[in-house]
Amino acid sequence: MTPQAAAMEPDGPPAELTRVAADVDIRLRRLFDDELARWKELDPRLAEAIEELALVVNSGGKRLRAAFVYWAWRGRAGGAEAHPAHGAGPGERHVTDVGAAFELLQAFALVHDDIMDDSATRRGRPTVHVAQAARLEAEGWKGEPRRFGEGVAILVGDLSHAYADALMAEANPAARRIWDDLRIELSLGQYLDLRSAASGQLDWETARRVSTFKSALYTIVRPLQLGASLVAPASPALLAGLEAYGRPLGRAFQLKDDLLGVLGDERQVGKPVGDDLREGKPTELAAIAFERAGGDQQGILAGIGRRDLDAAEVDAIVEVFHTTGAVDEIEARIGDLVTEAVAAIDPLPFCEQAKGALASLADYVAARNS
Amino acid sequence: MTPQAAAMEPDGPPAELTRVAADVDIRLRRLFDDELARWKELDPRLAEAIEELALVVNSGGKRLRAAFVYWAWRGRAGGAEAHPAHGAGPGERHVTDVGAAFELLQAFALVHDDIMDDSATRRGRPTVHVAQAARLEAEGWKGEPRRFGEGVAILVGDLSHAYADALMAEANPAARRIWDDLRIELSLGQYLDLRSAASGQLDWETARRVSTFKSALYTIVRPLQLGASLVAPASPALLAGLEAYGRPLGRAFQLKDDLLGVLGDERQVGKPVGDDLREGKPTELAAIAFERAGGDQQGILAGIGRRDLDAAEVDAIVEVFHTTGAVDEIEARIGDLVTEAVAAIDPLPFCEQAKGALASLADYVAARNS
Repeated sequence: MTPQAAAMEPDGPPAELTRVAADVDIRLRRLFDDELARWKELDPRLAEAIEELALVVNSGGKRLRAAFVYWAWRGRAGGAEAHPAHGAGPGERHVTDVGAAFELLQAFALVHDDIMDDSATRRGRPTVHVAQAARLEAEGWKGEPRRFGEGVAILVGDLSHAYADALMAEANPAARRIWDDLRIELSLGQYLDLRSAASGQLDWETARRVSTFKSALYTIVRPLQLGASLVAPASPALLAGLEAYGRPLGRAFQLKDDLLGVLGDERQVGKPVGDDLREGKPTELAAIAFERAGGDQQGILAGIGRRDLDAAEVDAIVEVFHTTGAVDEIEARIGDLVTEAVAAIDPLPFCEQAKGALASLADYVAARNS
Repeated sequence: MTPQAAAMEPDGPPAELTRVAADVDIRLRRLFDDELARWKELDPRLAEAIEELALVVNSGGKRLRAAFVYWAWRGRAGGAEAHPAHGAGPGERHVTDVGAAFELLQAFALVHDDIMDDSATRRGRPTVHVAQAARLEAEGWKGEPRRFGEGVAILVGDLSHAYADALMAEANPAARRIWDDLRIELSLGQYLDLRSAASGQLDWETARRVSTFKSALYTIVRPLQLGASLVAPASPALLAGLEAYGRPLGRAFQLKDDLLGVLGDERQVGKPVGDDLREGKPTELAAIAFERAGGDQQGILAGIGRRDLDAAEVDAIVEVFHTTGAVDEIEARIGDLVTEAVAAIDPLPFCEQAKGALASLADYVAARNS
């Protein structure tokens, strides 16, 4: 743990994250209040889709992307000086809009991913497509529940995508180019994920590539680069410096996610443990286990990707992850990656407060339990 | 038919449409060439999703929205003078980007709508979700074909949405606000469509509202307003003047679409005739028939919304549409609406060439057979 992070609560997110999250949540609530009022007046039925989206967005989420946007902006806007707790000047309002845009983009990605993975719960609530399928049945409406539920969920995601983009309205062209690219990377990364699970390509190389798109770039590198670009177009050296911090931290984030997906506390993670295994999600964890497993263990691991895995079969696979040393190996890699990320903070041309925040965020990414 | 439109080919789109379409198609092809080269180099599997999107975008489409963008821009940029055939200055390149953005937005909407409606064909090709489900089976991959097919189609649509937005990069804030709003209207309109079909609300009022969002605003009014705004923010009077042309023409477009959906030539329309009836799509055509139908006819119309309607049952419903006079009534309304739209052209502060183009486009919308 770095000295800067020593003050963070042992179990919770650091203040550098919660403070940004609070601002972003206020902004998101204002967006939904405005939009609900506007559409309800025309036709209350239209507001239902927005209410469903508001439920997803307000049901939690760490607002990690918004925090990376904020601290890269603050680090650069603040130069080398220390800064007081943030105020609410025009710059702050703009960066909060962009942070909120990232959270809406994340809601869009989650709602669509949940259809593709047929996940039943998310953040402890039924997923949109599951809730809407149940609504069709409860209302006694016509049609196939699955078709209706997924249709509404596609639209709720599309709406979130459009709102995300609307909040980017004031971003300069340099920031917008990053925004455009990260959305393409996000969709292509998810496509590769889907295709790999279907075709059984659980190789380490593919898992790494998916993780680069979906975690390293989308969650950390691009929010940082975009946040820094909001001040003015960033030099290639600054973009590379942020990548030197964000790439290893993004990998650590993904590895932690993979561990939580099989070893986490279901109530904290918010989705059933074992679902990643049933989906055949390609992870470095599984890739290492496959490399090291003996004959009998290979037989157990072959169950990965079977939708009907029961709890005992999930436990047996997790046992192989432990006995092959794959879990220990992943935990060691997370530690190394966080060290690598933290070492990349010092050369950044950022104020000390922002550097401290980036160190806290790095420790949090590795230590979180949800 | 207005004098300006007399020169158009009896069966084909007018030159004012085909010329814009040709420019937009070149721009789209360049986008796909660039993107395929960029991603293939990294991993050929990533390019598959872009290739699938390119197939959708290049498989036809009238490029009507791009034409409305172009002529509203040209009308205002050109003032009161006549203009030679368009060149390729920076303004032309920008308006072509925006026209291409509308076509990508349309591809996004079609690919997602086809999942919601479970349409098997579009523009004479298998829809994306159907083609991708078949691909899973042909490759012998794991998982449920429907889940995989719909998952890939969701991503192909999302990718198209992101590319559409990237082509809007240079639009000014006034144009961008229209762009943001029309996407929200599009998703909410589709939500109302889905919800009405499920809940059996086939009332005329709901059908009108869905049609306003999905046809009048999205297809005609917003492209016109956005095109005019590319020159400089448009005054409320200009926005209203464009709406006076676009609203009735948008309704005529929808009414024509509804007629083609049940009376059209399957090969020209590109989707099976009768699908609108099987989906229970709320149309003014059906609403009028319901209002006028006697007891026996009501029984026949009650089949609307049944997924398993056979060809004879579709024919019987179409017969009721004719005998109740609903078809004649819709054709009369289309004529009146086009007349109303054309009358709104003269007061516009546009050059004569653009006014002639808007008149040609109005006639085409009413006369088209696909």
